[in-house]
Amino acid sequence: MCYISRDGRDAGVNYYCLRTSRTEIRVIETAVILSTGDELTTGKVIDTNSAYIADRLLALGIKVAAVLKVGDEEEKLLWAFEQARQLGDVVIGTGGLGPTVDDLTTEVVAEFLGLKLVEDEQVAGNLRNRFERRGVPWTANNIKQALFPEGATIIPNPVGTAPGFNVDIGRGKRLLWLSGVPHEMIAMLRETVLPWLSEQKGGQTQIHEATFKIHGITESKLDDLVKPIKVGNHAKLSFRAHFPDLTLRLTVSGNEAQTRDFAALREQIRAILGQYIYAEGDLTMEEVVGQLLLAKKQTLALAESCTGGLISHRITRVAGSSAYFLGAAVTYSNEEKIRSLGVNPATLERFGAVSRETALEMSAGIRQRTGATIALSVTGVAGPSGGSVEKPVGTVWLSLASANQHEAKLLKLIVLTDRERIIQGTSQAALNWLRQALLA
Amino acid sequence: MCYISRDGRDAGVNYYCLRTSRTEIRVIETAVILSTGDELTTGKVIDTNSAYIADRLLALGIKVAAVLKVGDEEEKLLWAFEQARQLGDVVIGTGGLGPTVDDLTTEVVAEFLGLKLVEDEQVAGNLRNRFERRGVPWTANNIKQALFPEGATIIPNPVGTAPGFNVDIGRGKRLLWLSGVPHEMIAMLRETVLPWLSEQKGGQTQIHEATFKIHGITESKLDDLVKPIKVGNHAKLSFRAHFPDLTLRLTVSGNEAQTRDFAALREQIRAILGQYIYAEGDLTMEEVVGQLLLAKKQTLALAESCTGGLISHRITRVAGSSAYFLGAAVTYSNEEKIRSLGVNPATLERFGAVSRETALEMSAGIRQRTGATIALSVTGVAGPSGGSVEKPVGTVWLSLASANQHEAKLLKLIVLTDRERIIQGTSQAALNWLRQALLA
Repeated sequence: MCYISRDGRDAGVNYYCLRTSRTEIRVIETAVILSTGDELTTGKVIDTNSAYIADRLLALGIKVAAVLKVGDEEEKLLWAFEQARQLGDVVIGTGGLGPTVDDLTTEVVAEFLGLKLVEDEQVAGNLRNRFERRGVPWTANNIKQALFPEGATIIPNPVGTAPGFNVDIGRGKRLLWLSGVPHEMIAMLRETVLPWLSEQKGGQTQIHEATFKIHGITESKLDDLVKPIKVGNHAKLSFRAHFPDLTLRLTVSGNEAQTRDFAALREQIRAILGQYIYAEGDLTMEEVVGQLLLAKKQTLALAESCTGGLISHRITRVAGSSAYFLGAAVTYSNEEKIRSLGVNPATLERFGAVSRETALEMSAGIRQRTGATIALSVTGVAGPSGGSVEKPVGTVWLSLASANQHEAKLLKLIVLTDRERIIQGTSQAALNWLRQALLA
Repeated sequence: MCYISRDGRDAGVNYYCLRTSRTEIRVIETAVILSTGDELTTGKVIDTNSAYIADRLLALGIKVAAVLKVGDEEEKLLWAFEQARQLGDVVIGTGGLGPTVDDLTTEVVAEFLGLKLVEDEQVAGNLRNRFERRGVPWTANNIKQALFPEGATIIPNPVGTAPGFNVDIGRGKRLLWLSGVPHEMIAMLRETVLPWLSEQKGGQTQIHEATFKIHGITESKLDDLVKPIKVGNHAKLSFRAHFPDLTLRLTVSGNEAQTRDFAALREQIRAILGQYIYAEGDLTMEEVVGQLLLAKKQTLALAESCTGGLISHRITRVAGSSAYFLGAAVTYSNEEKIRSLGVNPATLERFGAVSRETALEMSAGIRQRTGATIALSVTGVAGPSGGSVEKPVGTVWLSLASANQHEAKLLKLIVLTDRERIIQGTSQAALNWLRQALLA
């Protein structure tokens, strides 16, 4: 039995642990994330792991006290381990588990803790089998990936060669180390680390999540709209903006009683944001549109001018899109609008290429040529040049044509000033209008 | 006058400084980067600033010892300032300079250093003018952005409201603080911080950089090819892979004698990589193709099947592309290939949609319809379904048609297994082939 003070400052005994048992973990409220590797401190690679881990930990009610990034150097790793142990109730690290000499993590962890490295026979056997199956020669370096600090629990790597480990670092704290390869880290986190953390949090932790994909309002307006929602201590609303995508996530975590308001909160969000939600769950706009086209047995054709093929590209990124997508005409000149869409030269002459009239003729033209049940057209000024006083950069006309609809709609994206954002924003607005038409 | 030991361990006097002067900076060899903000420790935003800064510092021969990320909390900020001062010769930080109550950086820096906050009249005046011009009411909060720790030098923010500062943190070290908004950080870094650091490095530091955009080899093959190049202590070769883009950068920094081999190294790289270099400088493939089309007074049309409009989107992302781009037909069905490109139904029947023969008819068809001087077509299997033993997923036929060329080319992207990468990789290979044809 041992008594350890909760933090260095407090001289009193306020933490109790049993050295011989695995259950000596303190209450986990904060974490420190370590991201290691020379590729991070030289700026060669942008660290996406730490943001992913922080987001997942927060869903469990664990706050990240700090993220530390250091290169593959013994001295810096030792510094980071010590700092992390001081700052967090638990330490989650990534990187440096590979077979090369640069990969120091396991050795330095053992050094830090004064532990021996021991070979795990099962991991070593799996590695040898893997190499044999692939006909790759087995070298002495590779055994490195089967060595772990004595007493550590192995964290399996279901999608790569290097497993991680979970080791006692004293003071009732543990260090959990994962592969630095993003998809390996994600698999290890999901399958082993998050369930383990959830168990430490009392075993009773339930996590309920709802994801809302948003279109039609800015992030700050979204913030204003959801502010009146009283989420309490166990729920959290978070945003993620990756233009033109905007995502709102509701996370409720705790025991059964604490998570009982999840359904009510989800309903409240639906009621407040209704018209702005284009999907629940992690779907893209083009996936939503694709599912609707399939469900409604519709076929789609596009006539794109200022979006230059982006809408067509987004539609065809979705696997299986050939079931509902016939094709697109990207008409970047008046001649092409006339030749390939049958737009009347007089319309272009009188109203211009960026006009309600031209947009209407474009959607009708592509629908007629392809035989699609629904057609969408886009014509606008993406800039930076080509704008005028009446039609400034960001002026865009959309049109939809189907058996019972032939409409045009004006977008004014004049708050967006760069070409790329106007093109991206237009594609999102056009797809959303198509979605609404398919639902009507 | 004062004598400070270079590091804690060395008891000897090996560093000399004059307290009364601004020139008391130690030799800067290492830096610590601080990224602050709750959006980073909650995983809401991926921190791209630290990688950018690390990359730019390395070009000056300054190594990043560690990157620390903490949220907007006084206690954590104080911890980070102290750790950073211990670990680095200079500290570069971002975030928390805004007008809201969350923005604590300046106050906490002043607290850390025991300095008063003083208003900078010029900055305050500029802020008031800015608000007046925009008709935005001036609130007390906004004056926060004109307050700086006493004795700090201001780092102007040419593209935003909040300037940064450069302040003495003792031990001959300085802390340089910048806006956390990426484009503001970049402007402040480029215009003030990098020139200042270069001056500290002896004033004689010259930086020569050459950027090579690469196509046609993998990152590991590129690594093998450039390995024999002896770069010495003052030069550095670095890669950046953002599929399908691959960039190699040569940086030579030092005094005049030390950078004398820049031109020779650049020539050596050109000689070794010649055929794989599609651009020197930070140009995209579509910009290179656009410049060539303009220079050669050519016009382009596209017929896309498996790339679904992506090539057209990439061409039209470039401002001014309407000068050389006529349009594209995205033909996602056999019927569309027949109708809009004039592909012979017998060709489709006999050879299939993914074949040399269909690709050739597609390029000829779009060229004839649009009157473009050069036309490019693409037809292939992007997957995940649709593959066969003879034509597995990743099989793609390209064709080019011009007055004196009508050719087809087979791509086998079977190492790429996901739809998105096959589409992206195909677009890059197709544009590169077009580039080569324009150069021939």
